Amino acid sequence: MNRGLLIVLSGPSGVGKGTVCAALRRKLPELTYSVSATTRSPRAGEIDGVNYFFKTREQFKDMIERDALLEHAEYVGNYYGTPRDFVEKTLSEGKDIILEIEVQGAVKVREKFPEGVLVFLLPPSLQQLKDRLTGRGTETQATIDHRLSVAVEEMNLLEHYDYAVVNDEIDAACRRIESIMIAEHCKRERFLHELFVELEGLREKQNIPER
Amino acid sequence: MNRGLLIVLSGPSGVGKGTVCAALRRKLPELTYSVSATTRSPRAGEIDGVNYFFKTREQFKDMIERDALLEHAEYVGNYYGTPRDFVEKTLSEGKDIILEIEVQGAVKVREKFPEGVLVFLLPPSLQQLKDRLTGRGTETQATIDHRLSVAVEEMNLLEHYDYAVVNDEIDAACRRIESIMIAEHCKRERFLHELFVELEGLREKQNIPER
Repeated sequence: MNRGLLIVLSGPSGVGKGTVCAALRRKLPELTYSVSATTRSPRAGEIDGVNYFFKTREQFKDMIERDALLEHAEYVGNYYGTPRDFVEKTLSEGKDIILEIEVQGAVKVREKFPEGVLVFLLPPSLQQLKDRLTGRGTETQATIDHRLSVAVEEMNLLEHYDYAVVNDEIDAACRRIESIMIAEHCKRERFLHELFVELEGLREKQNIPER
Repeated sequence: MNRGLLIVLSGPSGVGKGTVCAALRRKLPELTYSVSATTRSPRAGEIDGVNYFFKTREQFKDMIERDALLEHAEYVGNYYGTPRDFVEKTLSEGKDIILEIEVQGAVKVREKFPEGVLVFLLPPSLQQLKDRLTGRGTETQATIDHRLSVAVEEMNLLEHYDYAVVNDEIDAACRRIESIMIAEHCKRERFLHELFVELEGLREKQNIPER
């Protein structure tokens, strides 16, 4: 059986990656969602293993020690991370899995999991990015400068990604990501091994000498 | 404007690449077809520049000399080849172009045009390939051996390709190729330069120091 794909959906804050990810999951119900581990307390209605894997700080630190996370970060006093075994299990079952994550986290996943497919969601236009950055003329120069340097930092990370998808319209963005998944399943590496094994078998059966 | 893509559709003889290419062109009328140059005489109804660019042997040899062909081959006494300028002109107009060609020709195109997207059309199953190769038991061992070594040669070329598409059903194969085209348009290299130029402009305007 062919292994599944890990799709890492990321992009600058405010670009709409949560909305696009949710729309994609509605469109592709067979697509598995990468559930994060966290040390924060469950909120009402949240289910362990569905919304998050809820862990104690000790359990989380142990996962870091054992290299059991593809990435992790601390955010307002709590740990968040991507458990490696859940991703691995899904892929080995031949299923695709999607991970929605901020830009730095995605780059960390790339380091630990080079075969992941990194998709960078872009704002509809650079003009819109500029407008968002410069604000409505009410921001101080310091605020604009800060936003700008954050945006430059974020955009610089694009070079670590495989694909960029413009989020001009949710359905169009979903179609592009779906196309990327189909295309990645067609990469020749995924066919080479199986074909050569079969052809080798044929050749032996027919006594064709090796070239 | 973003450059178009050169899609090179190829595969072993009998896999149905002509049928798939025709179906894809019906589905995507904006997709330009790479017209070949040939020294053979026009048949009734064939139009120069539409079906082929009809050339004399002298003109064709001159094109070879000037490196004006992405690939060429001789077949039953006539030359056939892919004119480079027609491909370049189409791509620079931002249009995608498709070239349908046998497996060795595609590999030659890759050498002269590394940014081409090479798609290898595969038979629906290895079983079907085996059945086609071993025939119905009426062929001599020599015939089977010859077919088998040709198939192994052809399959060995898959390693030079970017993608493999199974031709189990024409519409499904077309959808996969269309997805590959959409995904290739989303490759991050196609966004990096434009974005950085724009961000650089923004940074200069705002006097943000370089990192």
